[in-house]
Amino acid sequence: MHRTKVKVVEEALDANNTIARANRADFDRHGLTVVNFMSAPGAGKTSLLECVVAELPGVRVGVLEGDVQGSMDADRLAHLHVPVTQLNTDPGFGGECHLDANMVRSALPELPLADIDLLLIENVGNLVCPAEFRVGEDHRVMVSSVTEGEDKPLKYPLMFRTCDLVLVNKIDLLAHLDFDLDRFLYNLDQVHPDVERLLVSARSGEGIEQWREWLSGVVRAEGALA
Amino acid sequence: MHRTKVKVVEEALDANNTIARANRADFDRHGLTVVNFMSAPGAGKTSLLECVVAELPGVRVGVLEGDVQGSMDADRLAHLHVPVTQLNTDPGFGGECHLDANMVRSALPELPLADIDLLLIENVGNLVCPAEFRVGEDHRVMVSSVTEGEDKPLKYPLMFRTCDLVLVNKIDLLAHLDFDLDRFLYNLDQVHPDVERLLVSARSGEGIEQWREWLSGVVRAEGALA
Repeated sequence: MHRTKVKVVEEALDANNTIARANRADFDRHGLTVVNFMSAPGAGKTSLLECVVAELPGVRVGVLEGDVQGSMDADRLAHLHVPVTQLNTDPGFGGECHLDANMVRSALPELPLADIDLLLIENVGNLVCPAEFRVGEDHRVMVSSVTEGEDKPLKYPLMFRTCDLVLVNKIDLLAHLDFDLDRFLYNLDQVHPDVERLLVSARSGEGIEQWREWLSGVVRAEGALA
Repeated sequence: MHRTKVKVVEEALDANNTIARANRADFDRHGLTVVNFMSAPGAGKTSLLECVVAELPGVRVGVLEGDVQGSMDADRLAHLHVPVTQLNTDPGFGGECHLDANMVRSALPELPLADIDLLLIENVGNLVCPAEFRVGEDHRVMVSSVTEGEDKPLKYPLMFRTCDLVLVNKIDLLAHLDFDLDRFLYNLDQVHPDVERLLVSARSGEGIEQWREWLSGVVRAEGALA
């Protein structure tokens, strides 16, 4: 029984990876850099997008907003005048807790792939399943808020292990929390030694320039490779 | 294709509900009140358990700790000298993002069902799938931290709609956030009008006495019904 369940999950992930590779091929054909942007609910993904999408010199940005339902985050980004496409995971049942490659594929016709250089995919807020499903991205970035506690890398290791950059957000609140930043970074290094990390605050602006530079850097690197 | 997927999901939820009813029957047979305790990662579930499990006069408490992997939360509760059983969702693959009725059933032999009055089941930190899977509980309680933003009821409506009590946690931080409490409560009423809610802080102790009283109340009510 248990073995069967594992097999079904493996087959589902294999099928997902096949579609993810097709997405990646389409993105590559358009010279597009794609970032899968993940975090727990309320960690600040949308705020951290608001800080950067309209302020990357020479980089044309598009956003794919993944949510169980509604378009609140897409609405928040509307004033920034970059192409935003909403993708909801709820049609037909209670709602998927993550984006998968097929959902992203279904949204591709609505995205102006030829007119953008960087696609930021905001995943559903969740630290478990989004890490298991590739969607065709070049890079994975996650946000971990200091309000969530130091233990999160140890409790959700796959998420922290599979990302290329960890944005440690809400550091403007550090003075008001019992959060031990050194312990968090130690825990992070236990599951993903030396992964790139930036201390940021979408609210105070601290670290945001480095976050913009990181994004510009990966777009330039992809361009150089193309 | 899509219709088939919906059917598979419905069948999985039906199978889960059957096992959940069996769990519930076992709990009832022992005169046990069971609370399914849910939230996003880092909202403060374990801290809010630490505040109450050893301080409910006349109520013998047990805890079932659900985590993808590790036993950090169970270890945190160890000094309170109540029975704690760890349930990990990761064996065999990347890890389930929620507890289901079968996982809880598999842990029942390790729980001293005859020696406790209240079982608190701490679910995996996630605002989506835990709401879809009943585990045999009498009540659902969720924690929403004020650091997560006012929009969460609208973005994760099933979770907020299916719970009997919402603990609005970390209110000691309100002075340091842009969080609009009235707007959060308005959004909450949009998806679950008049659901019971308590403003609490595990850190300052505000509202914790009411949280204890709520738990004692549901245990008394179940006892009166039994």
